[in-house]
Amino acid sequence: MSFFPAALETLIEKFAMLPGIGRKSAQRLAFFVLSLPEGEAESFAAAILDARGNVRCCSVCQNLTDAEVCPICASDKRDKSVICVVAEPRDVVSFERGREYNGVYHVLHGVLTPMNHIGPDDLRISELVSRVAAGGVEEVIMALNPDTEGETTALYSSRLLKPFGVKVTRLAYGIPVGSNLEFADDATLSRALEGRVEM
Amino acid sequence: MSFFPAALETLIEKFAMLPGIGRKSAQRLAFFVLSLPEGEAESFAAAILDARGNVRCCSVCQNLTDAEVCPICASDKRDKSVICVVAEPRDVVSFERGREYNGVYHVLHGVLTPMNHIGPDDLRISELVSRVAAGGVEEVIMALNPDTEGETTALYSSRLLKPFGVKVTRLAYGIPVGSNLEFADDATLSRALEGRVEM
Repeated sequence: MSFFPAALETLIEKFAMLPGIGRKSAQRLAFFVLSLPEGEAESFAAAILDARGNVRCCSVCQNLTDAEVCPICASDKRDKSVICVVAEPRDVVSFERGREYNGVYHVLHGVLTPMNHIGPDDLRISELVSRVAAGGVEEVIMALNPDTEGETTALYSSRLLKPFGVKVTRLAYGIPVGSNLEFADDATLSRALEGRVEM
Repeated sequence: MSFFPAALETLIEKFAMLPGIGRKSAQRLAFFVLSLPEGEAESFAAAILDARGNVRCCSVCQNLTDAEVCPICASDKRDKSVICVVAEPRDVVSFERGREYNGVYHVLHGVLTPMNHIGPDDLRISELVSRVAAGGVEEVIMALNPDTEGETTALYSSRLLKPFGVKVTRLAYGIPVGSNLEFADDATLSRALEGRVEM
């Protein structure tokens, strides 16, 4: 049973459909939208349509972009011989924020998750293989999350890439900088010990 | 510095503007909108425009509605001689869910909050006074939150209403049903003791 006007109820339902937003939060958000100054609600709606209509995947690296090729792939200052493979577009942002990495990326848009029926065909793995097959790539860095799905995906992809004679690496596992040994979990500690380097 | 396409960045900013939504959540929501099936994003945008365009305040009780007068005020089954005064439209929903109350409502759209410069003119108090002045009202129930702002607002309103010879009441304070005495705070306990009734 609904106690709100139909239009408000619809908006609440739309907000409640978003991830991490429950019915109560959706109500609060909908009330906020109603209280927005003239024009703001319109520009919110326009932003949804605009993002949905204009954002697509870069034809090279599959990252989100509003052009045919994303600025990173289009830049001639980036080293095209190194490809950093990430699961999501937001991971690209994490690397770019560091301003350390100068290669290019490849966004898989997910990881292999048999539990949720996400197989190789649901990811952009074949696009990665094509890129490497086209030549000019010397190293592929697997920068996926250090969990079962991420490691499986990295292993699966690296097996497909090895035949092309490319070097496949993964990020180092270890103690996060600025953290405390006391709070490091066993798995991380054992990986850090395994990967120890000479000083 | 932005690493996302402009259209996506705009959508993230719009989501981040919502109450309780930080930058990270806004990113997640924006990505979710991008992943919506064809037509869903459009209907989301349409819901915002529709709610914003068609939802207004009932000319009688100031509750949100899509008609000139809300269904509760328009119903001839409701007792128009009792007005329950609430701060927000969602409070009406709380009462209606209980199906116990058969009177009508008056939504103030806030409470007096001098700290945030919200005074009597920012609320729908004058509309309440006009309703009572028009006659036919026997009782006004103040159902505002039991905090400083709520009590101040209730007190202020009741002083304006008293001259019309109307009975002004407030909700009972006490132990919530189903709760545990052990966890009741001092203020609640003392109010519950004060308002004790004979069995």
